[in-house]
Amino acid sequence: MTPSITDPRAVRRAARRGELEGPTRGFARGHVQCNLVVLPHRWAQEFEAWCDANHDACPILARSEPGDPRLPALGTDLDVRADLPAYSVFVDGERVAQPTEVSDRWRDDLVTFAFGCSFSLEDLFRDAGVDLAYEDRGFRGAIYVTSRRTVSVAGFGGPLVVSMRPLRGPDAIQAITTSAAHPLLHGAPVHVGRPDELGIDLLDPYDHLGDVSIADDELPVYWACGVTPQFALETARPELVITHRSGHMLVTDLRSEDLRGVARR
Amino acid sequence: MTPSITDPRAVRRAARRGELEGPTRGFARGHVQCNLVVLPHRWAQEFEAWCDANHDACPILARSEPGDPRLPALGTDLDVRADLPAYSVFVDGERVAQPTEVSDRWRDDLVTFAFGCSFSLEDLFRDAGVDLAYEDRGFRGAIYVTSRRTVSVAGFGGPLVVSMRPLRGPDAIQAITTSAAHPLLHGAPVHVGRPDELGIDLLDPYDHLGDVSIADDELPVYWACGVTPQFALETARPELVITHRSGHMLVTDLRSEDLRGVARR
Repeated sequence: MTPSITDPRAVRRAARRGELEGPTRGFARGHVQCNLVVLPHRWAQEFEAWCDANHDACPILARSEPGDPRLPALGTDLDVRADLPAYSVFVDGERVAQPTEVSDRWRDDLVTFAFGCSFSLEDLFRDAGVDLAYEDRGFRGAIYVTSRRTVSVAGFGGPLVVSMRPLRGPDAIQAITTSAAHPLLHGAPVHVGRPDELGIDLLDPYDHLGDVSIADDELPVYWACGVTPQFALETARPELVITHRSGHMLVTDLRSEDLRGVARR
Repeated sequence: MTPSITDPRAVRRAARRGELEGPTRGFARGHVQCNLVVLPHRWAQEFEAWCDANHDACPILARSEPGDPRLPALGTDLDVRADLPAYSVFVDGERVAQPTEVSDRWRDDLVTFAFGCSFSLEDLFRDAGVDLAYEDRGFRGAIYVTSRRTVSVAGFGGPLVVSMRPLRGPDAIQAITTSAAHPLLHGAPVHVGRPDELGIDLLDPYDHLGDVSIADDELPVYWACGVTPQFALETARPELVITHRSGHMLVTDLRSEDLRGVARR
């Protein structure tokens, strides 16, 4: 069992003080973790339209006012400039840094979007009786850039990114029905079975935590992933974009179970 | 396109007149088709308890009064003695006949149970946009007797019988979420993927209609099947049991879509 922080406010405070390092998977169990995208206001409307057209990858949970670093719907004390353990910063579409806070880069016209993240699904799966054997093997997540394209809107487009979980047949079924009931956490998977239909190689993930392996009696199950917007932004190339670093999420006060059956924000 | 009868009352009338031969799959689209079990009243309570303990295989939609051949909840003019195209008759647990009506065997103490049938799922799948490529290949259903045991109650037990559909990944996901929303039509599948985990050989079904084949990009998906009680009865061995003949269902006035979200009768 990895050490963990159970209170979402404590996770954010530790990140803010620079005392938290590494991915947030397993932290504040039962609470929603979010993907983050921050970009200048003049891009916000088109970006939101692209998100709505690709809701499975980018289910918007909250959007800030321009310049406002708070997201009160997700936590009253929340400051998006420092409350994540790590960020990715893109300038003109190129990733230039992965800092632990972004206060020094903040601007009055920046708008923040927070998206549901499938990290939250593990808690729901456990509650639903899904056997997460992959956790016992030390597998803690793998994401892949697929050959499938998102729906393009204005300058935003690019590939669909997916997260993969290896599950036995009956567990795959339970995971599918459980996730389908949570559209704001990416909803039902986009695919199950053969990776070549997504144009990916299971042994060569874009990013992963721990051992990536699939047992003989397991099926790979693929969910749309909140890293997808980072690729859409590379296409649109706004002058400045800040996102969470892969796996280093915004931990919120929302409870995953409260999102059951909620289709849109 | 096979010829079909679209009105459920017309299907039952044709069966009653002896003018209908063969399985009912594809008839009265949108209407619920039922598995049937008729047995003496002294066995009815234990049998119902077994059904409730194995709800995925035996979701009870209606139960008659002793001796009453009607099931008004499923159709006002319905007569279970003749309205199915074919029956199986078991005496002391052995199948002795597969007649086209059972009026001559009727008794005052016979109780009828009707169960949801996954035949109804095809309509719902089509409405949900599931690609039923297997229908184009002429595959119209296959059932298997698995190595999995049902929960035993009194003299009732035996193996779980499943129906199998070969589906591509995204279609399997849609079929899983659609069927999960209809617990009275067997609900979510019990398994997806490897047949050996159910102790079955895909190429050797217990019963099937049309070509049984699975394409390279398809996964076999397995639902609990309403033929399961026929095996439970062979264990309990009541002196007389009448069921539908496999694939020759009771076609009812109920609409499949009206069962969405209904967990129990």
